[in-house]
Amino acid sequence: MRLLFAGFGTVGQGLAELLVEKGAFLSKRYGIDFTTTGIADPRLGSLYNPSGLDLEKALVAVRDNQSLAGYPGDGYKKGTLEMIGEAEADVLIEATYTDIKTGEPATSHIRNAMERGMHVTTTNKGPLALFYQDLAGRAATSNVRFLFEGTVMSGTPVLNLLRETLAGSDIREIKGILNGTTNYILTRMEEGMSYGDALNKAQELGYAEAVPDADVLGWDALAKVTILARVVFGATGNPFDYFCEGITKITAGAISKAKDRGKRYKLIGKVWKEGSGVKASVQPEEVDLTHPLAGVMGATNALTITTDTLGDVTVVGPGAGRTETGYSLLIDLLKIGGAL
Amino acid sequence: MRLLFAGFGTVGQGLAELLVEKGAFLSKRYGIDFTTTGIADPRLGSLYNPSGLDLEKALVAVRDNQSLAGYPGDGYKKGTLEMIGEAEADVLIEATYTDIKTGEPATSHIRNAMERGMHVTTTNKGPLALFYQDLAGRAATSNVRFLFEGTVMSGTPVLNLLRETLAGSDIREIKGILNGTTNYILTRMEEGMSYGDALNKAQELGYAEAVPDADVLGWDALAKVTILARVVFGATGNPFDYFCEGITKITAGAISKAKDRGKRYKLIGKVWKEGSGVKASVQPEEVDLTHPLAGVMGATNALTITTDTLGDVTVVGPGAGRTETGYSLLIDLLKIGGAL
Repeated sequence: MRLLFAGFGTVGQGLAELLVEKGAFLSKRYGIDFTTTGIADPRLGSLYNPSGLDLEKALVAVRDNQSLAGYPGDGYKKGTLEMIGEAEADVLIEATYTDIKTGEPATSHIRNAMERGMHVTTTNKGPLALFYQDLAGRAATSNVRFLFEGTVMSGTPVLNLLRETLAGSDIREIKGILNGTTNYILTRMEEGMSYGDALNKAQELGYAEAVPDADVLGWDALAKVTILARVVFGATGNPFDYFCEGITKITAGAISKAKDRGKRYKLIGKVWKEGSGVKASVQPEEVDLTHPLAGVMGATNALTITTDTLGDVTVVGPGAGRTETGYSLLIDLLKIGGAL
Repeated sequence: MRLLFAGFGTVGQGLAELLVEKGAFLSKRYGIDFTTTGIADPRLGSLYNPSGLDLEKALVAVRDNQSLAGYPGDGYKKGTLEMIGEAEADVLIEATYTDIKTGEPATSHIRNAMERGMHVTTTNKGPLALFYQDLAGRAATSNVRFLFEGTVMSGTPVLNLLRETLAGSDIREIKGILNGTTNYILTRMEEGMSYGDALNKAQELGYAEAVPDADVLGWDALAKVTILARVVFGATGNPFDYFCEGITKITAGAISKAKDRGKRYKLIGKVWKEGSGVKASVQPEEVDLTHPLAGVMGATNALTITTDTLGDVTVVGPGAGRTETGYSLLIDLLKIGGAL
């Protein structure tokens, strides 16, 4: 299986490390051999070799020099779209940065790869939140797979659970903690830290960006909720069609008062059926301390799925991380290869 | 797909209700039509009709008279093994009572069905805890499927998650709350009830049997732990090869002292790799209040799976129940039918 990386940041590198580490095992166990023919990254540079690149050397080059320039040979001088247009590859791994307002450049990468008959796996929330149905339709037309387990809760296999394992069930509501940064901040605030100090701490730990809006205003959770609404319920709304309030208005006093009532503030993303329609929202909610979501502390994520057959099933797991998100791409690749 | 029920108690009836309720939907969505040709139950009586029984009428007969005798026609006068030996059916649904010391009569039912080329799905822990490898081998020889999602956490799809979705991961430890009755008793004791009162309450609610040994001595959790050890890690131990201590020695005082230290007693079943071997145990453990297992209250079950790729993933869901366990059989049937 010949792979093409669009984006070789944390997530792309996480997958590359897993492929280096587990390549021999995966070949033996599933009979799938992975070869990387191209890597295109706007910041680190690009490489292309139809007979296969050495991922270990690419990882070393990035680790040592924050650039692919140190990789033996001349590199690839054209852009990502051009590489997608001419590379010999079976699967595009789309792991560039998320833009939930335009979905670009990822959406163009995905469309072009599909047109060339490549399967696509992505961790990028933009294309899913804005164009899921269009992209799924194009995948069907081109007879390729389009998988995106990592867009919600990284490698924690919730989309898999929702689409396959809970088959035959009527899914009524999905709600949970879909952003680790805000959950970390709320956890620290409950321990007595101010919002500002907790945010600083989250930035120090690399959970929050320098401009933390996407997390603290709820947009990251909103993108995931929109993906769930589209993929599970067939809704066609865009992220900003749904109600979204972040955690910036929650005070230490409100958290403490909630605690006295046996409640805990969580930033809850929610999608549910109402009549014949689908509703969705992101907002701080007081969760009862006896609910499994209340116990989810720190940067961990969780989703509670309500069905007719099982009542509530909750999955708690990592929502981000280099290996964790890289692994979501590996699960998708094993599926594309027919191993799962 | 022609079905044969061995055992038509709560679980068998739970599946039958789902088949009645969802039959048209499943036929439309997955193109699978389910027909029940036989029902054999030692207590309720038996029915056989190669052109198909009316499940709705069978359910009404059981509901109204605690017997299948009211079903139109003469019934089937021979035993379960004889029915398995001569019935026209594609799948045996083994849902008789669990005996974790002998695995019978379920193991004989399963072996005989496989010899006749039937696929098997079961919720019975005995055959799995004692003879998993033997039965999996026989299934392979007979070229039939052998599925048992409901043996651990009823329809909550943890076996599926372990065997398929976490593929490519190195699973290091699995631990959790595998018995709802004891978790219910511990929850009530933490609220101030004595062990005796909490047990009585559990019996009133139908969670605990009149002779509660299988639950309170840890045997039910032990059977599930043994199944996980065999299926996930390839261990060959029998239930009573592993350390097992129930909840009968835990006092209200110990629970209260643990709480003061930020801990909570849970009956924890655990399987882990140690060196080249596999270890397992069932015993009360003090779980840190910040661990997702600590928040699992009442009759709910949960498993935390530790892997190299994702760290900890915890699944919280029902561990028992008529519809919930019946649904586990339905998932297995959809798999056998190639729908999943």
